[in-house]
Amino acid sequence: MSTLNRFSVKPLSTLTRTLADVAFGRRDPDLVIQGARVLSTYSERILADKEVWVSNGRIAAVKPSGSYKSGAARLYDARGGIIAPGLVDPHIHIESSMVTACAYAEAALLNGTTTIFCDSHEIGNVMDVAGVEAMLEDARHAPLSIFLTVPSTVPATSPALETAGGDLTPEKIAALFDNWPEAVALGEKMDFVQVAMGDERSHAILAAALSRGRPVSGHVYGREFVAAYAASGVTDTHEAIDREIADDLLEAGIWLFLRGGPPTTPWHSLPHAIKTITELGASHKRIAVCTDDRDADDLLQFGLDWVTREAIMAGMKPEQAWAMGSLHGATRFGMENEIGGLGGGRRADLVLLNDDLVPVNTWYGGELVVEQRKVTPVLEEALSKPYRYPEAAYHTVKLPKSLKLTPDLPTETVVAHTIKTELPGITLGHVTVTLEPANDWQTHFDRHDLCFVTVVERHGKSTGNVAHGLLNSFGLEKGAVASSVGHDSHNIIIAGTNESDMQIALKAIEEKQGGVCVVMDGKVTAMVPLPVAGLLSDKRVHEVAEEVKALKVEWEKAGCTIAYMGFNLIPLSVIPEIRITDKGLVLVPEMGLQQLFETI
Amino acid sequence: MSTLNRFSVKPLSTLTRTLADVAFGRRDPDLVIQGARVLSTYSERILADKEVWVSNGRIAAVKPSGSYKSGAARLYDARGGIIAPGLVDPHIHIESSMVTACAYAEAALLNGTTTIFCDSHEIGNVMDVAGVEAMLEDARHAPLSIFLTVPSTVPATSPALETAGGDLTPEKIAALFDNWPEAVALGEKMDFVQVAMGDERSHAILAAALSRGRPVSGHVYGREFVAAYAASGVTDTHEAIDREIADDLLEAGIWLFLRGGPPTTPWHSLPHAIKTITELGASHKRIAVCTDDRDADDLLQFGLDWVTREAIMAGMKPEQAWAMGSLHGATRFGMENEIGGLGGGRRADLVLLNDDLVPVNTWYGGELVVEQRKVTPVLEEALSKPYRYPEAAYHTVKLPKSLKLTPDLPTETVVAHTIKTELPGITLGHVTVTLEPANDWQTHFDRHDLCFVTVVERHGKSTGNVAHGLLNSFGLEKGAVASSVGHDSHNIIIAGTNESDMQIALKAIEEKQGGVCVVMDGKVTAMVPLPVAGLLSDKRVHEVAEEVKALKVEWEKAGCTIAYMGFNLIPLSVIPEIRITDKGLVLVPEMGLQQLFETI
Repeated sequence: MSTLNRFSVKPLSTLTRTLADVAFGRRDPDLVIQGARVLSTYSERILADKEVWVSNGRIAAVKPSGSYKSGAARLYDARGGIIAPGLVDPHIHIESSMVTACAYAEAALLNGTTTIFCDSHEIGNVMDVAGVEAMLEDARHAPLSIFLTVPSTVPATSPALETAGGDLTPEKIAALFDNWPEAVALGEKMDFVQVAMGDERSHAILAAALSRGRPVSGHVYGREFVAAYAASGVTDTHEAIDREIADDLLEAGIWLFLRGGPPTTPWHSLPHAIKTITELGASHKRIAVCTDDRDADDLLQFGLDWVTREAIMAGMKPEQAWAMGSLHGATRFGMENEIGGLGGGRRADLVLLNDDLVPVNTWYGGELVVEQRKVTPVLEEALSKPYRYPEAAYHTVKLPKSLKLTPDLPTETVVAHTIKTELPGITLGHVTVTLEPANDWQTHFDRHDLCFVTVVERHGKSTGNVAHGLLNSFGLEKGAVASSVGHDSHNIIIAGTNESDMQIALKAIEEKQGGVCVVMDGKVTAMVPLPVAGLLSDKRVHEVAEEVKALKVEWEKAGCTIAYMGFNLIPLSVIPEIRITDKGLVLVPEMGLQQLFETI
Repeated sequence: MSTLNRFSVKPLSTLTRTLADVAFGRRDPDLVIQGARVLSTYSERILADKEVWVSNGRIAAVKPSGSYKSGAARLYDARGGIIAPGLVDPHIHIESSMVTACAYAEAALLNGTTTIFCDSHEIGNVMDVAGVEAMLEDARHAPLSIFLTVPSTVPATSPALETAGGDLTPEKIAALFDNWPEAVALGEKMDFVQVAMGDERSHAILAAALSRGRPVSGHVYGREFVAAYAASGVTDTHEAIDREIADDLLEAGIWLFLRGGPPTTPWHSLPHAIKTITELGASHKRIAVCTDDRDADDLLQFGLDWVTREAIMAGMKPEQAWAMGSLHGATRFGMENEIGGLGGGRRADLVLLNDDLVPVNTWYGGELVVEQRKVTPVLEEALSKPYRYPEAAYHTVKLPKSLKLTPDLPTETVVAHTIKTELPGITLGHVTVTLEPANDWQTHFDRHDLCFVTVVERHGKSTGNVAHGLLNSFGLEKGAVASSVGHDSHNIIIAGTNESDMQIALKAIEEKQGGVCVVMDGKVTAMVPLPVAGLLSDKRVHEVAEEVKALKVEWEKAGCTIAYMGFNLIPLSVIPEIRITDKGLVLVPEMGLQQLFETI
């Protein structure tokens, strides 16, 4: 294990005498960061001429500049900058970035984020408890403070509609809470309709958390659901899309996490939801910011620091925004005595900001891990020794010897139930198309702007389930694209214009035991291998970011109208109107299966 | 046990389906409070035209007025008023009011307070763990939510300086945390000098709390101690006396509890400390209000509702002040998902306020316990069945058969080390007086404005310790006053002008096994019997208030210059300059014993 991780800093209970000695001047600090302003997330002010005394990875005291006279302490000149607490991301999914926790840490620290609360429900969907626990081990090795909000909704739907690798029952969730102290909350309870309707399993899962004093994170759309959802014990959400639902949620006692995402995506809801403060006059004290999901290549550009600055752009004072990015998330999870501010005894998770509130340096547990926006040798060393997932995690793509990936050409006139992709790529339209007999599929594709879409069960749990469908308006004119990430069950999804390229794509994913790829004219033109659970690369974050960038270039070249992050949602059978899983087409919200073709 | 107590409302984990049903309209609420404005402690706004749906003692939802159509729910017309969450007092000592927890509940509910965090260190000083546990049982029976901050500094000093009934070691404190889930924090760590100096026992007690994830409450004077105190893990205080130390504490990561007390007392520090917000611009989000200590007769007049209104007088908006009186304290103790706001699933601990923010009605767990500022039959019934303390608690005044309460008259010239009382009655001056030989004590008293002060050990732990001293400027011209409350060890303190009246006072206290009394000309003219641990009455709060009022009349008639609450601090050997315990005169801060007389 790397020597730099969450456990490098000893518990405060073992250090109080030492820290009291340092704070009172009877013992030297290890480090004094001198001459900076400090951003107080407690009082929401920027205070001039301070220095931060660090001992044993914790803050011993913040004192007036010049208080430290001389001695054994290392000195760090921070003149001109602003010292602030490291950012705390209260809701993210590491898997979205297709990297391990150890690799994610690098991007987080570069962005000034030192603590994250992650919900590893993707790996739970593939590998059940074993996947969640492997990621917890990964998290314990990472040079970052990673806490778990236990996946609450695995599988997303039911075995009747899709084959998942995981089934997190109330009993398994209870055991995760009991066995892993870092499991601090229940992760976003995505089946908000079932919760509001009083579904027995959903409420048994809520009870597993609440009876243990663990709070429940939420995920809800629709003002009509808010009251019942709150009454069920949910106390945070990150999905508020406008000021009205944001206001409802806040008044229902729910913490708001304002989600910022790349501005071109529908995930960038912060500018709308923040109006509960800026237009409706609500206090910001129970409002934080979060990232939720990020492509690997967006991680560095659109980190939580960027989200925090977006809150400033939207009208918050810098001190308020930074508190929303640090202290408030910590408070929501009952950890404000440990992180989120520059109080005595807290972990020395610090950033040095420039006047634009861009993190220049990051200290994690008192160690300088980022300096002038570059990884330091200490962090480099830690990142060179990542956790290795158990062997089973490298063998999760289990396919039969041969599969037919495309449907038979109809020989008479049929009505096809096609899946129409629409920007921004979240909801999908249900469009019926009449297919007159033709000599080949290409004729249909040209006439109706279609291509194949196929889902292949990959958990080895069926007798080789394959579902065929047709994508409408996806824009792919030749070749194939495929992914072993296909929410939430993560079967393999392949779109293509011909059996051969689709088989090549599937083969490439099987060989790497996971990945996303583009195939053109019989060749793989871009691929991000995801060998860990078919979800994660085991490379460093910059390498994955480069691979993702290259993939996106080929993805666009292939003509795909929706981005990869939308494509891999096509199997997510809880979002309207029609999706495809390994069991076939699923109509939402009817939650029933639909044949691809109907004869007239 | 009364049927109305903290446990009358079932845990949320068992009620989520029911509450979701109610919130969604599939099931009737039990109660709908209609037509009021609501005060949101979350957004800090007053919202018009709302109704509160209550089910199973919890808030199912707050809806727009008129949402509830008709059905089985009881309706309560709250038009014209403001519904707000019940107040949360984050720091109080029940014993200061000389009543039991069950009796305290009545006053609290009349003031709109529904939750308190109490530190029962007085009874701990008398009865050790058994006393703390008896009060916890008392608290469990009370119609009020009472949580414990575990007494952290018992005894206040050391066996060398005084004889205490309790000795709460780190091990005993750890056991209290492990055995009592309502022990949510460590109580105010009063030995702040020892903490700052790294004292081993003090830090072992801090570790007992911190290693269990329990926060530590504080008590500190002097800006020079703040940094070391915070570094030791203390995260709240209630002693800030001015804006400067308030600011220091806040920046050190310490929650501020602004203490309001009767304006004539030195405990009313809120108007000074609140200037950290109103003058220095700090956010109020980590600031709450508290009462700390109250005479029984002040309980009703100067409750937490009054303190909250004082915060408004000092410049806060009403919505902010009420949040400081409810949500903020709840948040500090990690209980904001249960109390402190009108969110879904929370306990229906509610108040109906008039426009002056005076509580008119109180609902505790959905039960109307106060209506039009009067106790309802439901509460009357609960108050009629109070907890009875174990028999041992009624036998804590253990005295030898005979004691001499006054010193021998000096036969030559001596220098006497007298204790000079000064308003407001907290610090005491060390004044040496030369006593020329005289025929009787009265001559000395007349010449130098003196009277006797005597402390009698009452825990049965010594061979009859009695310490004699002389009070200077106390004003008592005849008779005696005495108390079995004498901080912190609660030995009996008697001031008087003659042996006979002092013996009568002592006898009265012994007979009642505790109390405070005034004796004139051989007769007890006023007495508050305190039979429980010599600290508490077992009567209802109004009865005790009447007794205290009567006592105060006689106390003033007797000429005493400092009030009873100052008098019973005379043995508290941690406040300058000189005190008296059962071991003799104690010089502070030297922490050494001093002979009463020195020959020249």
